[in-house]
Amino acid sequence: MTTQFGPSYVRAIAPYVAGKPISEVAREFGLDEARIVKLASNENPLGMPESAQRAIAQAASELGRYPDSNAFELKAALAARYDVPPEWITLGNGSNDILEMAAHACVERGQSIVYSQYSFAVYALATQGLGARHLVTPAVKYGHDLDAMLAAIADDTRLIFVANPNNPTGTFIDGAALEAFIAKVPRHVVVVLDEAYTEYLAADKRYDSIAWVRRYPNLLVSRTFSKAYGLAGLRIGFAIAQPELTDLLNRLRQPFNVSTLAQAAAIAALGDTAFLEKSAELNAAGYRTLTAAFERMGLEYVPSDGNFVLVRVAKDDKADDAAGERVNLELLKQGVIVRPVGGYGLPQWLRVTIGLPAENAAFLAALERALAAA
Amino acid sequence: MTTQFGPSYVRAIAPYVAGKPISEVAREFGLDEARIVKLASNENPLGMPESAQRAIAQAASELGRYPDSNAFELKAALAARYDVPPEWITLGNGSNDILEMAAHACVERGQSIVYSQYSFAVYALATQGLGARHLVTPAVKYGHDLDAMLAAIADDTRLIFVANPNNPTGTFIDGAALEAFIAKVPRHVVVVLDEAYTEYLAADKRYDSIAWVRRYPNLLVSRTFSKAYGLAGLRIGFAIAQPELTDLLNRLRQPFNVSTLAQAAAIAALGDTAFLEKSAELNAAGYRTLTAAFERMGLEYVPSDGNFVLVRVAKDDKADDAAGERVNLELLKQGVIVRPVGGYGLPQWLRVTIGLPAENAAFLAALERALAAA
Repeated sequence: MTTQFGPSYVRAIAPYVAGKPISEVAREFGLDEARIVKLASNENPLGMPESAQRAIAQAASELGRYPDSNAFELKAALAARYDVPPEWITLGNGSNDILEMAAHACVERGQSIVYSQYSFAVYALATQGLGARHLVTPAVKYGHDLDAMLAAIADDTRLIFVANPNNPTGTFIDGAALEAFIAKVPRHVVVVLDEAYTEYLAADKRYDSIAWVRRYPNLLVSRTFSKAYGLAGLRIGFAIAQPELTDLLNRLRQPFNVSTLAQAAAIAALGDTAFLEKSAELNAAGYRTLTAAFERMGLEYVPSDGNFVLVRVAKDDKADDAAGERVNLELLKQGVIVRPVGGYGLPQWLRVTIGLPAENAAFLAALERALAAA
Repeated sequence: MTTQFGPSYVRAIAPYVAGKPISEVAREFGLDEARIVKLASNENPLGMPESAQRAIAQAASELGRYPDSNAFELKAALAARYDVPPEWITLGNGSNDILEMAAHACVERGQSIVYSQYSFAVYALATQGLGARHLVTPAVKYGHDLDAMLAAIADDTRLIFVANPNNPTGTFIDGAALEAFIAKVPRHVVVVLDEAYTEYLAADKRYDSIAWVRRYPNLLVSRTFSKAYGLAGLRIGFAIAQPELTDLLNRLRQPFNVSTLAQAAAIAALGDTAFLEKSAELNAAGYRTLTAAFERMGLEYVPSDGNFVLVRVAKDDKADDAAGERVNLELLKQGVIVRPVGGYGLPQWLRVTIGLPAENAAFLAALERALAAA
């Protein structure tokens, strides 16, 4: 294909490869959709909470109208929950939208963005979409090396992405270390702290990043309703930052980027603490089941604080870089969808979302067969 | 506020001012929401079609899952409808998303974008968000001057926005003139033909822009489900272009930019030709009602092929540039929301969406009182 249109940095982007939807796997492998187990996209296995279902049913009569561009009610609910003014909140079409807006608002072509090896794919995509320079620091134990990230900051660095817990590895940085890091970042460099999985943290690991937002005008905390809140299909995330940064993001925000139903569902889900607790408990139990099985099977895994586990499926031969794709194919044949992470530079690993007990059991049984066959 | 973050071209953006939602006007003016008439955002007064209501109710159980990033079913439906391969289709979070993606995909900082005076506000916003140069050609009779737009193309021009019908003026370019224009645009310059209102065109004005897409690899046609299809609150639009351009947009597309419910509703609405016909008939009748009243009241208006009319509310004094805001305030006090267009450089005008017969009547009665009071 010729490449006559567009800047070279756009043409160089390799598009994001999304997890296969159930219907596509069913078509490709000739399987019954109802029997497929999908543990590929870190979705909440409980689905959307009933509270949100009721909220969208109520809001469904207003869909001929544009959404409220300023999301008055949802911002009021978030402001009350996090004890910040509504003017500190930006809504996104998923937190993906927040991450893209933040990069676009803070960085221009030729300037640089710092992020870690094995961190979320969107950081690289957002950087590349701007024609910005990638400063990628090597991971330590599959997680962020904060000292290396500080050292990587160059004169032209304008933004740093930090994921905590990190996707796809599940690694966690404790609050004290993270705040010490933020305090050392120069004030003209924006720190985007991506906390998509924060609701899954055990009580003893929680920290108050919103308090840091009050102290650091260069900190933006990104959250999502796609994971523990169970609203992935509706697309909604949000950022909290001081007004200067928030104002900048809102200049780039598409005015109607968050749908009416996403706003209504988010308000309901935000107040549904019972659902959130149930989701976290289910996740913790599923984590114990999966990791106990991995240990029994002699499989290396990365300890995770998210709703997923990264597990190494290569045979003892350390050079077996086809392992992830090979075992993944064997799993797909059995109707189990997980995420190969070769695109992240982890070709010997698979990322599996923690599912319902029956889904976890189906995955583990399929994994044993896949490892034997592969 | 200090401006330490972000490129100068981002800091210079004046954020889009959305129409006031009904709830906000009710709060501000102490009015009953149920009695407010909103004719401000070119929404379909019939709301969402029942076919789409049913489709979203059916899809509501899947919302814990991410949407299908590739929108297999919706693309198949669009491909069948427009007789193009699915690989020619890009989906957007509203057509706003399409317009932003097209600009971002084709233009880099310092290059230029051509568009017309009095055309859709997002063209200016997208240009500014990239730090690109605006080449804005003066309007003729409130519409596009295609010869001037051709003449404006500079060496560094990479994209041209054309709206047909145009928003906020309602002007229309006939198909023959439009194709002649596209044929003269250099092949390395992308033409984004924004047809958000095309479903409202009378039968004798219709033209086949998809046939042009097959002939011109630099043409992208943008459409939306927010207007005649009645799905504004769900956020969905799409583009049709040859694969080279489509591929470029998809490199920048946020992978889950269109929600599950928007996809489901769009499939239903696309097949609901009865609803589309009813919407167009209602619109044509409302247009006759509004314009007859404007003539009776001695008010100048711009003949419109959209679902709205631009009407001049200034007194005879040509210098009365506060007229739009003044009459708008008098309308708001009566619970009628229309769109002042001072931000478009049309301070003597208001843009009113064509509503239901009762809404049109309420607006006209309120307008007479507002003109007397203002």
